[in-house]
Amino acid sequence: MSLPEPVASGPGTDFLTEIHEQPAALRALLEHEAAYARVATAARERGATTVRMVGHGSSDNASSYGVYAFGLLPRWTALRDSITLTAYYDAGLDMTGSTVIALSQSGRTPDVIDYVERARRSGAFTVALTNDIGSDLAGAAEEVLPLAAGAERSVAASKTYMNQIAALGLFAAYAATEGRVFAAGVRATADLLEGAIPALEEEAKQVALTFASVGRMFVVGRGIEFATARETALKLLETCRVAAEPLTATALAHGPVAALDPLFPVWTIASDDETLPAVIEAAERVRAAGATLVASGDAAEALTGAAYVLPVPKPPAPLLSPLLSVVSGQLFASSLARARGLDADHPVGLSKVTLAR
Amino acid sequence: MSLPEPVASGPGTDFLTEIHEQPAALRALLEHEAAYARVATAARERGATTVRMVGHGSSDNASSYGVYAFGLLPRWTALRDSITLTAYYDAGLDMTGSTVIALSQSGRTPDVIDYVERARRSGAFTVALTNDIGSDLAGAAEEVLPLAAGAERSVAASKTYMNQIAALGLFAAYAATEGRVFAAGVRATADLLEGAIPALEEEAKQVALTFASVGRMFVVGRGIEFATARETALKLLETCRVAAEPLTATALAHGPVAALDPLFPVWTIASDDETLPAVIEAAERVRAAGATLVASGDAAEALTGAAYVLPVPKPPAPLLSPLLSVVSGQLFASSLARARGLDADHPVGLSKVTLAR
Repeated sequence: MSLPEPVASGPGTDFLTEIHEQPAALRALLEHEAAYARVATAARERGATTVRMVGHGSSDNASSYGVYAFGLLPRWTALRDSITLTAYYDAGLDMTGSTVIALSQSGRTPDVIDYVERARRSGAFTVALTNDIGSDLAGAAEEVLPLAAGAERSVAASKTYMNQIAALGLFAAYAATEGRVFAAGVRATADLLEGAIPALEEEAKQVALTFASVGRMFVVGRGIEFATARETALKLLETCRVAAEPLTATALAHGPVAALDPLFPVWTIASDDETLPAVIEAAERVRAAGATLVASGDAAEALTGAAYVLPVPKPPAPLLSPLLSVVSGQLFASSLARARGLDADHPVGLSKVTLAR
Repeated sequence: MSLPEPVASGPGTDFLTEIHEQPAALRALLEHEAAYARVATAARERGATTVRMVGHGSSDNASSYGVYAFGLLPRWTALRDSITLTAYYDAGLDMTGSTVIALSQSGRTPDVIDYVERARRSGAFTVALTNDIGSDLAGAAEEVLPLAAGAERSVAASKTYMNQIAALGLFAAYAATEGRVFAAGVRATADLLEGAIPALEEEAKQVALTFASVGRMFVVGRGIEFATARETALKLLETCRVAAEPLTATALAHGPVAALDPLFPVWTIASDDETLPAVIEAAERVRAAGATLVASGDAAEALTGAAYVLPVPKPPAPLLSPLLSVVSGQLFASSLARARGLDADHPVGLSKVTLAR
């Protein structure tokens, strides 16, 4: 395991350090490949092919990636399930034929635990995906899969999210009996990421300086990159106090584009897959509204007229793109928080473990 | 059918007129009750009990309500399905056992039509829910249900959204063989709404005056009112150019609360159901952050410390609350657009029929 790059000290150091630790975190996850293979096989053999993912914040953002990982690999229907419907309204849905994947860094999120207990009684195959395999959540679920991201000190998550999306992909790939290829892809992507971080960090710092007084942003992605858009927006909200809203390329056109102006920049994530034409169209709409466009993702260069371009390397398979593209957003948030004099490690009003209902 | 209240002329007149027309639109929908009963019965008899809703903008917001209507009434799993997974990535999911409900005011949204064609070939029972029963979308689906909202001239939707949520509720209720009771509830709610609009409009106008220079807001709702939060935020974005982001009460605590300050107000929707304690907790968090709190919904008065309270009447059943609570948000957006000198009927960069990918 190579050592992460050293980072400067001061506010936001933990967040930046943990961004650098992500390649190592991915490699640590792969040490548990056999557990993922076993649990995914169990789900397939039980016919539990409707995947219900539950979690809040970054965990919910990662679930947006899971929708595509399960849809594209085993061709299962995966949804970000409503916790409220089961845990508050006690709807009592029949969950036979469902795999529940409960995502919580700490394993202590109360309504996620409540949901899992009810889902298990309703016939679901329940799996906890958490950093703490001794947590209450792990105890409530039939199976537990380690997230293996290591201790995360910064309140703003980075490596937890990274390992959540990789873990969902690994689970989905083993459900499709393509796990070994996917695991090799994650390993190669970790190497690419490690090589890319120093230059990305420098570029993100330059962009952040010009955004120091921005109060609102949109973050646009589509398909597998919508998760990246959601996670990038959340980082900007919690670490930079920017009112950042994630939108799909199409949702942007259905109303929100009307709010844009030159002081309302748009961060766009373009990856080289079937959604690229829609993202290019969205970028044109952004420019027509006079807003500043930032292009990221492995197809960033396809967005003409962007004021800033922050490309990432192309991974071995399109489904791995979000493991790279989110890091541009994390590094931008890290630099922007610093430029605004904010401490990304300890945003006001937040704590690492959220026990809110 | 009673005549709507007359409204002043000038920019935004169509939007305001159509807000007033909503009780009449609901009554027009109920004239098609037999069609909803027939199609819902067909879905049940075919065992098509996984509901996949697709649509953009307000149609997608209405689908958030559908998740709860189908979950609480026939206890079916309903999801806002990914259009991208099917129409762009060609994932080829097996959709036997699924009912697809495609929502589009115009029936002309290209990727929704594409999705429906593919879903029908994949075994889904496909239903178009549209104002134009002669549209391409209606032709692509096996069944069409009229939205019956009448011509909508304002680009910003109001009565289309209203009838979409009522239609999803009616479909769900007939799937649960409780359609007649629900239809009677909608009729009673239309009367309540008609009685409430004049006072609500006056109150919303007063609040809007004090918000004329606001640039960013959160809109918080949970459970059945999350759809209301999404639709209210979209109205504020497209008609008032406010960066308004919808959040569940719990999502607020998982990061975004850190962005709040006294110039970042929060619109909260509180309804009298099992989620009320979580919404009260979220409101307390908002106040602790020093942000201005606006309380709406039929349990608005339960949120102590709100700077503005805009309650609506309590409907015959909790599931009908969103038909009332969204109107406060619409009227607030209408007044705020006017206070900011914007034309809610014709937001810059938008057209009534969005053909964007």
